[in-house]
Amino acid sequence: MKLVVSKDILKVNDKIAEIIGEKLENRGVMAVNILGSPGCGKTALIEALVKNAGDRFKFAVIEGDLATSRDAERIEKLNVPAVQINTGGGCHLDANMVLTALDDLDLDYVDVLLIENVGNLVCPAAFKLGERKRFAALSVPEGDDKVAKYPTMFQSVDAVVVNKIDLMAYLDFDIRRVENDLSKLAPGLKPLLVSAKTGEGIVEFSGLIEKAWNEFQKAQR
Amino acid sequence: MKLVVSKDILKVNDKIAEIIGEKLENRGVMAVNILGSPGCGKTALIEALVKNAGDRFKFAVIEGDLATSRDAERIEKLNVPAVQINTGGGCHLDANMVLTALDDLDLDYVDVLLIENVGNLVCPAAFKLGERKRFAALSVPEGDDKVAKYPTMFQSVDAVVVNKIDLMAYLDFDIRRVENDLSKLAPGLKPLLVSAKTGEGIVEFSGLIEKAWNEFQKAQR
Repeated sequence: MKLVVSKDILKVNDKIAEIIGEKLENRGVMAVNILGSPGCGKTALIEALVKNAGDRFKFAVIEGDLATSRDAERIEKLNVPAVQINTGGGCHLDANMVLTALDDLDLDYVDVLLIENVGNLVCPAAFKLGERKRFAALSVPEGDDKVAKYPTMFQSVDAVVVNKIDLMAYLDFDIRRVENDLSKLAPGLKPLLVSAKTGEGIVEFSGLIEKAWNEFQKAQR
Repeated sequence: MKLVVSKDILKVNDKIAEIIGEKLENRGVMAVNILGSPGCGKTALIEALVKNAGDRFKFAVIEGDLATSRDAERIEKLNVPAVQINTGGGCHLDANMVLTALDDLDLDYVDVLLIENVGNLVCPAAFKLGERKRFAALSVPEGDDKVAKYPTMFQSVDAVVVNKIDLMAYLDFDIRRVENDLSKLAPGLKPLLVSAKTGEGIVEFSGLIEKAWNEFQKAQR
């Protein structure tokens, strides 16, 4: 009989995440875990980032989905190495999946590893993946109440990107509500407004990566 | 030491779900579990349904969220009894939470109990709540690839409602892709197009409840 215990799973996961973190650091690779609801535009944000900052950073992408390889195919069209993880029903990526996926990447040719998690505002927050930073994406059509309703996610991240601002004109979305909820639940976090579609705010989004990279370089010295 | 085992959790949950199902059946109450991503418009659909069919059915609503009581407050404004469950970080409603919430409802004055699950396209699919029917809501801004990417959810439901069709003009959303993916993964399911905002398709959405209710009445005889 095999017992699977929830607390142990997280402990083992954290241990593997540490191994990933060290492995990446030794190779000079900075990983960013990108989280958000299904359809909030995580893949579109990665595409926009690669187009904007692809000349400054060598990117690689790990895509997490229950099924399909659609997202990895989208990334590969940009000539960026991509590995698709299918969780086969699982609601989040875990460190073991990411460690296995690393075997399929040539880390010598990677500066920034973007890990797109399964679309889910709850479970992925609990699982470290050896990342240096965590970004949450929230999209305008989801509504301005999501920070308050999914606090554990927004408390676990280093930055919040509000995507699809091109749709603001057609929706009731009060950015002050997001700012207000963040100031209470995750003080210091200010939402960055972007549209992966129109490109608005993507320079600033690249700036987040650049800032994290500079910190990472400094810490490595 | 307390061991929490994943398989046992589901077995215990199913048992409690059966108890709920029997309890509701004895009182002539039909429960519908409403599932979908964060911000796909589950609460707005319930509001629209109550406004459209509130003269034919006595509704009650159980709202599931990690935090806040915002959704239950929205429902109570329509003079419909609502109970808010806060999962406190949990990614889905389980049968035990629903059984407890039933204590706060006077079932003699309820025909249709709508249970709005936590916004999540993965985990809630595994947990029965004593419901007679399961409806999945998918919204246009999430994109037309969600059925293929979250198959376990769409395979677990009796109906699929595509909400926010008022935004179709501003987005690339091919409904044929949804229909095609459903025909492969969940044969027999055809998406119902609605907009909780404009009211389009809400009569047909009420029709789904009416049809389920008639079947339920028939089965009870």
